[in-house]
Amino acid sequence: MTTTHDRPAHVTGAEATAAAPRDDISPLGRALRVATGGRYLHVRDRARQTLSADVMVRDPGMSLDEARDWTRESLVRLTEAGFVCNGYPEQYGGRDDVGEGSVDFEMTAHGDLSVAVKSGVQFGLFGGAVAGLGTQWHHDRYLADIASMRLLGCYAMTEIGHGSDVASLQTTLTYDAETDEIVVHSPTPSSMKAYIGGAAVDARMAVVYGQLWVGEDCHGVHATLVPIRDESGQTLPGVTAGDHGAKGGLAGVDNGTLVFDHVRVPREMLLNRYGGVTEEGVYESAIDNPGRRFFTMLGTLVRGRISIAAGGAVAGRKGLSIATRYALARRQFSAPGHEGEVLLVDYLAHQRKLFPAIATAYALQFAQNELSERVQDLHAAPEKDQRAQRELETRAAGMKAVATRFGNDTLQMCREACGGAGYMAENGLTLARQDADVFATFEGDNTVLLQLVAKGLLTNYKEMFGDLDMKGMVQFAARSFGGAVIEHTAARPLVDRLVAAAGRRSEDETLLDRGWHLAMFEDRERHVLETLAGRLRAVSKATDSFEAFNASQDHVLLAARTHMDRVVLEAFVAGIDVCTDPVARDRLERLCDLYALSSLEADSAWFQEHNRMSAARSKAVTAQINELCRQLRPDAMALVEGMGFPVEWLGSSMLVEPQWTS
Amino acid sequence: MTTTHDRPAHVTGAEATAAAPRDDISPLGRALRVATGGRYLHVRDRARQTLSADVMVRDPGMSLDEARDWTRESLVRLTEAGFVCNGYPEQYGGRDDVGEGSVDFEMTAHGDLSVAVKSGVQFGLFGGAVAGLGTQWHHDRYLADIASMRLLGCYAMTEIGHGSDVASLQTTLTYDAETDEIVVHSPTPSSMKAYIGGAAVDARMAVVYGQLWVGEDCHGVHATLVPIRDESGQTLPGVTAGDHGAKGGLAGVDNGTLVFDHVRVPREMLLNRYGGVTEEGVYESAIDNPGRRFFTMLGTLVRGRISIAAGGAVAGRKGLSIATRYALARRQFSAPGHEGEVLLVDYLAHQRKLFPAIATAYALQFAQNELSERVQDLHAAPEKDQRAQRELETRAAGMKAVATRFGNDTLQMCREACGGAGYMAENGLTLARQDADVFATFEGDNTVLLQLVAKGLLTNYKEMFGDLDMKGMVQFAARSFGGAVIEHTAARPLVDRLVAAAGRRSEDETLLDRGWHLAMFEDRERHVLETLAGRLRAVSKATDSFEAFNASQDHVLLAARTHMDRVVLEAFVAGIDVCTDPVARDRLERLCDLYALSSLEADSAWFQEHNRMSAARSKAVTAQINELCRQLRPDAMALVEGMGFPVEWLGSSMLVEPQWTS
Repeated sequence: MTTTHDRPAHVTGAEATAAAPRDDISPLGRALRVATGGRYLHVRDRARQTLSADVMVRDPGMSLDEARDWTRESLVRLTEAGFVCNGYPEQYGGRDDVGEGSVDFEMTAHGDLSVAVKSGVQFGLFGGAVAGLGTQWHHDRYLADIASMRLLGCYAMTEIGHGSDVASLQTTLTYDAETDEIVVHSPTPSSMKAYIGGAAVDARMAVVYGQLWVGEDCHGVHATLVPIRDESGQTLPGVTAGDHGAKGGLAGVDNGTLVFDHVRVPREMLLNRYGGVTEEGVYESAIDNPGRRFFTMLGTLVRGRISIAAGGAVAGRKGLSIATRYALARRQFSAPGHEGEVLLVDYLAHQRKLFPAIATAYALQFAQNELSERVQDLHAAPEKDQRAQRELETRAAGMKAVATRFGNDTLQMCREACGGAGYMAENGLTLARQDADVFATFEGDNTVLLQLVAKGLLTNYKEMFGDLDMKGMVQFAARSFGGAVIEHTAARPLVDRLVAAAGRRSEDETLLDRGWHLAMFEDRERHVLETLAGRLRAVSKATDSFEAFNASQDHVLLAARTHMDRVVLEAFVAGIDVCTDPVARDRLERLCDLYALSSLEADSAWFQEHNRMSAARSKAVTAQINELCRQLRPDAMALVEGMGFPVEWLGSSMLVEPQWTS
Repeated sequence: MTTTHDRPAHVTGAEATAAAPRDDISPLGRALRVATGGRYLHVRDRARQTLSADVMVRDPGMSLDEARDWTRESLVRLTEAGFVCNGYPEQYGGRDDVGEGSVDFEMTAHGDLSVAVKSGVQFGLFGGAVAGLGTQWHHDRYLADIASMRLLGCYAMTEIGHGSDVASLQTTLTYDAETDEIVVHSPTPSSMKAYIGGAAVDARMAVVYGQLWVGEDCHGVHATLVPIRDESGQTLPGVTAGDHGAKGGLAGVDNGTLVFDHVRVPREMLLNRYGGVTEEGVYESAIDNPGRRFFTMLGTLVRGRISIAAGGAVAGRKGLSIATRYALARRQFSAPGHEGEVLLVDYLAHQRKLFPAIATAYALQFAQNELSERVQDLHAAPEKDQRAQRELETRAAGMKAVATRFGNDTLQMCREACGGAGYMAENGLTLARQDADVFATFEGDNTVLLQLVAKGLLTNYKEMFGDLDMKGMVQFAARSFGGAVIEHTAARPLVDRLVAAAGRRSEDETLLDRGWHLAMFEDRERHVLETLAGRLRAVSKATDSFEAFNASQDHVLLAARTHMDRVVLEAFVAGIDVCTDPVARDRLERLCDLYALSSLEADSAWFQEHNRMSAARSKAVTAQINELCRQLRPDAMALVEGMGFPVEWLGSSMLVEPQWTS
């Protein structure tokens, strides 16, 4: 392996840490960071204490080529400083902690998202496929070079005709017994690999997914390593690469297309952990069921989804950090009885934009911590727990959808909340907004992922009660004490205690009662899931099952969303439970109130439709949200500090040299 | 005046019309265009029949400088072809039809939004201020050169410290009696003019807003013309211009900053229609009340807001045109009992994304037509109707907020609905999304504009009933027949008839009854406004009136939104009423159903809270929306055609050479 890019001598990992960002924060801000830092607080602190703004913030005026060069160099610096692949096995340069690996990505995403995504492509997707789908031969041969960026790669799964529907990819991987090779081929225009990060310029090797043919048999989608460029960057014979050029964002990532014309690689290049071809030219797999094999292979995507969820949430926090700081400094209109003009943050309409989003940001952080910790726990466990693994996949899919939706919506709101200043690229919002946009799409389209979540939940039902009379069994179980039907989070004993306590109070007392919130979230999820199970049971009897299923699609998505809402709330509750700082704990309780009530308000129509909330109660929820905004206002800066961005990482000129106050 | 930019000889207005776009559409598509074309159908058709894609679509890979050059040249071509300033008086090169002027902008916005915005800056803001705030001296001296782009200008209102709060601008315009000049000065850092389109490079002259001082007296905000650059493009002495460089979008518009250091212009340069300085050095104005004078001057912004509303709606329609065409071609996942894979457009979740937005697009088009026609009617009327003018200003502010919100939300939804393809700039969505983004901010921040709408509505109340007991009077009036309290639209007699007919039906029959929709919309607006009037009356008695008002801010915004929802629905109803094509009429009725029910669904929590809708009814609304999506599915392409984009104007490579079907 060779170094694929010449770098000027001055670019070193040490330099990435040369100028630590200033980061003086209040005691409450620090206590909130500790509370939200979880098991990997030290990883987060280390990044904050060491990564300088020049490796985290990209000049938004760069051309496409400049952005690509800067992104590649920044990633090299982060890698050399030991910040991006701690999820790798120790013998290949990592620390064998996949949770820490996802937090590495999260911290990288505090800076430029092109760098984060390029990191995700290189270490997560490309390297992750080699690690997860390959065997010792691949690991020994490639992982160290991947971890050190001596070998740059790409992940060629998506085709222009098939993205979410991976099982229908058209690329063929055909075993040629004569030469003991795999022939990689793009048989149709729609089989062109598309949107592939790294394919346009940088990648020397690709993980290519396609249908594996051995003799007359197709064994479904498998992946193989394929060298695509030589050391000088020229594409190899049979490989045609295209450049997508300008995109909606992520200018630093060189997305491109790949077309293969009967490209041959040695049989050993097939990533054969779950299925491969023997020396004798026979297909073999430890997993007999082709469907199960396929989903097991796709299961390796779970880490990517956890990372993208983290990135989406970080993007939202960046927006909130900029917009709230601006709102704390920018004044608009004078008011009777008030000295000077009124700060933006003092307007109710502005508070209603910022504070519920801040509450959600905190909620998602706790839920994200659970994911990062869980993925490492399962990784480190001596025995593999299939059910736990599947639950993690469901959770990761849901968090990816929810957190990236939050990120995009929040950044857009923040852009608008900063007015004209928010539209100037130098103020840090537009680049983040544009870069984060596609997080809603890659690593699984959000709508498709939510369906996956619902499917996972329904599978739990099915496993528990069998197929005979799903709805009846579900209803029976739902009525029984303990709520055995809906999937549990780690916080269950605490949740049960709070719910039970709330049940002993009158309605008037419970608006801020966590037990009431939890009970409402759980009840919503349970009812939606129960009725969905009933509808889908009817679907199986319908003459046109697609039409019948299709008619339930909005119900399916609602089931997924209400499930994720509960999971996130329970993570918030569990996070508060272990917070020992009394002031931070108090503010977290209020944020949790705000998160819970905002969700109830958003679904107020549903709760009223289903007689779960009276008209008066619904109005009271809205009034309470306004009151919580008022209460949180004095701590706005500490809440921002708690979200964890050193100011310099925000890349926002207006926060460094404000010109509007004078 | 000189030609401010050298243009290559080949760039002519004739060329803009050299290659008419292909635009073969179905009879239903055509009938829908006729129905939505209104009084200015011929203007729209002329643009579609003549403007070639090369003047409408920008290459998204352009650098900032290239984009600026291309934008300027495209605007010159459109101007020479007679497409952008038909709102100007005939003697200065226009057709004296300000409605047509706003449709000019609308059609320009079908192409590149940088061109549209640059057009808006030059002809609407800069030229509009000269026309609206200036007098004959200014008109004769400048308007012809502005209309022909021989004189490029900018509109220097916003300062970095004050945007929405125009009355508090800090720039000073000081009359110097010694020299009979106006001294233009930026006294503080926060008085720097910021985000000014054209200020960075192109503008030779600026309309500068500031506080007019004559002797010891400040007469409030006025505007003056100030030359800022010489013929070669060098800034003039005392003028410092900055370049904002990269923004969230609109790369073709050279936004910049302006700082004035005691810059002197002749007294005559003051735009003195509503207030100026006599030859004797005395301030004079035909409007005694300073507040009224200020709002009269700001009233000239109405045309800009009408245009931006049109642009926001067009941006949304562009997104829908791309995403729906994609959904009609792209397949994903196979389904039992269905041949091949399922088209995206056949999924309920996808229909729920696209069709309600299409319905809103049609609704907004009818409301926009009313605005364009109304502004011209008032312009052409021999006697000025102050109340009608104020109502138009309220309507324009509301439409600007609603239509730009629609545009941004819709484009984002469409980007995501096209998956990875949607993120590639060559497919037309990302550039439109980025360019339209700031429409939510400029020409008035949307939140501020909605407050302006609410204020306008409350003023109507106040005028009608006086101040003594506003709430009581309102309630009295609300009970009386004819609904005299809420502001009427042109469709009133028709609306009354439909509402009365609905009243005679049972609830079961009325889900698709237009009268029921209208009654629900009107009732919602009336109730929100009544209760708001009551709350604000209490505010005036509160000890801290800001806090009391602030606590009602979400209520204020709700009043504005519910008002606009009704106005838009009534415009839709009136538009259908004059549609003579039976098939188009039928489809418009269904779209109107979908628009109305989607609004009711979105506010279902409110309707249930206020006992306007039962739980069962609320569920029935949702089910009916799904059913309407199903019904509209077969006409999806005709609905897209009806939205009025020749395919080539969409700038979407994937629609020209689809590679995903093979």
